[in-house]
Amino acid sequence: MKKISLSLFVTLVSFALWAQENSNEDYTEPTKPEATEIWSPKPPTVTPGQNGAPPSDAIVLFDGTNFNEWVSPRDSSEVKWTLNKDGSMTVKLGRGVGDIQTKRNFGDVQLHIEWKSPEKIVGDGQNRGNSGVIIQKLYEVQVLDNNDNETYVNGQVGSVYKQSIPLAKASVPTGEWNTYDIIYHAPVFGMYGDVVKKATMTVLHNGVLIQDHFELIGPMTFIGWPKYKPHGKAPLLLQNHNSEVSYRNIWVREL
Amino acid sequence: MKKISLSLFVTLVSFALWAQENSNEDYTEPTKPEATEIWSPKPPTVTPGQNGAPPSDAIVLFDGTNFNEWVSPRDSSEVKWTLNKDGSMTVKLGRGVGDIQTKRNFGDVQLHIEWKSPEKIVGDGQNRGNSGVIIQKLYEVQVLDNNDNETYVNGQVGSVYKQSIPLAKASVPTGEWNTYDIIYHAPVFGMYGDVVKKATMTVLHNGVLIQDHFELIGPMTFIGWPKYKPHGKAPLLLQNHNSEVSYRNIWVREL
Amino acid sequence: MKKISLSLFVTLVSFALWAQENSNEDYTEPTKPEATEIWSPKPPTVTPGQNGAPPSDAIVLFDGTNFNEWVSPRDSSEVKWTLNKDGSMTVKLGRGVGDIQTKRNFGDVQLHIEWKSPEKIVGDGQNRGNSGVIIQKLYEVQVLDNNDNETYVNGQVGSVYKQSIPLAKASVPTGEWNTYDIIYHAPVFGMYGDVVKKATMTVLHNGVLIQDHFELIGPMTFIGWPKYKPHGKAPLLLQNHNSEVSYRNIWVREL
Amino acid sequence: MKKISLSLFVTLVSFALWAQENSNEDYTEPTKPEATEIWSPKPPTVTPGQNGAPPSDAIVLFDGTNFNEWVSPRDSSEVKWTLNKDGSMTVKLGRGVGDIQTKRNFGDVQLHIEWKSPEKIVGDGQNRGNSGVIIQKLYEVQVLDNNDNETYVNGQVGSVYKQSIPLAKASVPTGEWNTYDIIYHAPVFGMYGDVVKKATMTVLHNGVLIQDHFELIGPMTFIGWPKYKPHGKAPLLLQNHNSEVSYRNIWVREL
Repeated sequence: MKKISLSLFVTLVSFALWAQENSNEDYTEPTKPEATEIWSPKPPTVTPGQNGAPPSDAIVLFDGTNFNEWVSPRDSSEVKWTLNKDGSMTVKLGRGVGDIQTKRNFGDVQLHIEWKSPEKIVGDGQNRGNSGVIIQKLYEVQVLDNNDNETYVNGQVGSVYKQSIPLAKASVPTGEWNTYDIIYHAPVFGMYGDVVKKATMTVLHNGVLIQDHFELIGPMTFIGWPKYKPHGKAPLLLQNHNSEVSYRNIWVREL
Repeated sequence: MKKISLSLFVTLVSFALWAQENSNEDYTEPTKPEATEIWSPKPPTVTPGQNGAPPSDAIVLFDGTNFNEWVSPRDSSEVKWTLNKDGSMTVKLGRGVGDIQTKRNFGDVQLHIEWKSPEKIVGDGQNRGNSGVIIQKLYEVQVLDNNDNETYVNGQVGSVYKQSIPLAKASVPTGEWNTYDIIYHAPVFGMYGDVVKKATMTVLHNGVLIQDHFELIGPMTFIGWPKYKPHGKAPLLLQNHNSEVSYRNIWVREL
Repeated sequence: MKKISLSLFVTLVSFALWAQENSNEDYTEPTKPEATEIWSPKPPTVTPGQNGAPPSDAIVLFDGTNFNEWVSPRDSSEVKWTLNKDGSMTVKLGRGVGDIQTKRNFGDVQLHIEWKSPEKIVGDGQNRGNSGVIIQKLYEVQVLDNNDNETYVNGQVGSVYKQSIPLAKASVPTGEWNTYDIIYHAPVFGMYGDVVKKATMTVLHNGVLIQDHFELIGPMTFIGWPKYKPHGKAPLLLQNHNSEVSYRNIWVREL
Repeated sequence: MKKISLSLFVTLVSFALWAQENSNEDYTEPTKPEATEIWSPKPPTVTPGQNGAPPSDAIVLFDGTNFNEWVSPRDSSEVKWTLNKDGSMTVKLGRGVGDIQTKRNFGDVQLHIEWKSPEKIVGDGQNRGNSGVIIQKLYEVQVLDNNDNETYVNGQVGSVYKQSIPLAKASVPTGEWNTYDIIYHAPVFGMYGDVVKKATMTVLHNGVLIQDHFELIGPMTFIGWPKYKPHGKAPLLLQNHNSEVSYRNIWVREL
């Protein structure tokens, strides 16, 4: 049973040592400004990107040139989606194509991803421009062409599918590029496989806050109730839901 | 600034080491009964008392024979209350007598205490048989002769004074002995003097649950709002509120 | 899906109305003692019992005279345990006898129960004087003759079986009467069958605190991990574990 | 004492009514996908902006053309800062200029703000390009020219001043425009002026997560410990710290 990572281990020991060092019975409030200054350790310096471009410490999962970071989930074979000349990729329809997932496993992340519904409108409700950003292959932020297209609100664009209605519908017109900026924390499991801390998700859709530190009930579930099962780090999956949705500019920062 | 005690330090390091040792990516539920048995460390063996008598690991604060564990709070002088022949003590009225408090300081405790309102009824409302069990000299469980005597309910017998109305009024007739069995956890303060964890109190009055894991708002406050201030271990205080209330059989177990 | 009880409904509406009435932008701390007095509603008056005897508002589940409050769980037939002349009952061994459970269903309760291991010592480990107080037929406080008898500590007397090691072993000598005083809060489930609030248990064993507001991981599980499943009120069950354990003086107060 | 807003009142009553309506003892997991679809109420539709431009439901606090939304805090007189031709404003040095604050009061908000350190470098440490985004006039996100300029890390750019070290230093080169995207929840106070829920802050600095749902200890405090005091909605304040820091494109969405 995995309890904690090495970094948490180091943190705990450091904290314990530091706390011990500073342990005395003095509860006097400091009276000088210097007493509440902390000088170390220094946070890392990161060079930011512009307009959604990856910052210097990001892992770039898709920059438009190749599928090197991705595989087919079923058999770990090569990705069968379409690589477009404009630096994007598109879900390919047809038998045996399926979803794609990252080769790497992730825990807590800041994730940036851009997606576009097909310009040619096909179907309605959940059958129009449907895909999904499925973090750790379990926790889905819905991708859907919801423009002039009604569906259940806990399954609409930007929902945590069947768990959390988005605060707003903030899509751009069909055929234009949307952004999702996601702050995700993985669930923490205890020694009994129990949930010590639920997963949380904050989502900005085109810069508009639509999920506000939502505590997930469990994994995405189409029928019935979401129920957590203990797991470790896991891939990011993009869903093939029989709609030619496109993606581009995908990067994560490990938190 | 005190952060943690030595025992917490040891606990943290032990936990970190243990967690590290057990850290692997195996989240498989065990399938044998033996896999979920824990054999050590063994909890201590305690010989219980009968009918409120102190268990073997208790610190006896008053057994009726002397005031050795107590002092006057103002000047640490000898206790001026009355030591009775029946193994109890009684608040003494008059100038300069005041409250009494333990010489020892306490944090988290299980506390047993017995009290009796004066048989001769004097005054009404808050002026009849008023005293108080004030844990850490800050957090008061009200003692009052409330029989046929109305007062504000957040100040009635068994209230956490001016914070928590008791779930029931469970007093015995005036002049008979009441018991309070209290489970108390001290507040935990952070490095900014902030409250990381509020104090909690569970109280059984004559065996009836009257405070149910109540999270205290702050210290007892007669006027205005209770506001926590960081502090360490502190004495138990019994209040002299100008009523001849009696006490007996007082013991604590440190938690 | 049950969300809340009628009483919670009334509480919520009352709170909302009260809060609305008192809603203004005044955050000024009051300066008179009267401003922080609350005069209603008044808590109920309860006449306490002595030495574990039931208070006036208790539901007496067993007073030694009959099995009126109990049935056999398998087929709701009559209880087959032994009713003793001294006001106690004893587990009967043999095929088809089994456990017993209350006819009534309970949620949050204060529970008093007394139990006695057989004077004649038979077996060892989990096979000596084993029984269990199983609240809501799911959450077990272990009953065991642990005197000079070792077992795994998360299964010893006073454990929340396979979940929480007791803080102390506070048994009386084998053949004498033990008391358990339990404060139990049922788990609260959300609309997805998820756990909104875990069950909690505080246990005094012969007056010694052995479980301190423990948050249960889930139901009692012999093999594997405890996992909550949503449920409503449910009976109290006493376990037949092939040991002639006796019980007496059982009462609950609904919280 | 303010307890809850009208909207919370309506929410509570609605919840109570809804819960009551749905109250039954059925804890059966649904077996059809339709059973877990929610169709109303529909979230609002918001037209997003591009590259930090305000979405359709934002309150624009500064678009570069005027100071209509701002006043001087001391005397509510006109703002004395400089309005630049490029659509930005700049702190003006000199006696009697001071800070500026919004005329409107805010509670929970999503806030977008852009800021620039002076190209001409003056001073060092806390004296170089220092300003601050002070939400509710109490809770500060530090603005500082930290490039090649060391200071205490809990006072560096992007810190919650003297409370939370940023996860990264993500500044652009001095003289270029930085963005802060902030998700802020105001503290919630109880009937005793106590903190029922701490304020929280999430901050993206140029798209990089630097504050991750941080729970504030209290208001910004230069000397000593931050201590909450109950308050209602309050203005946004921009600090004049004797550095010619510039701001532009400021908008909020009320949450």
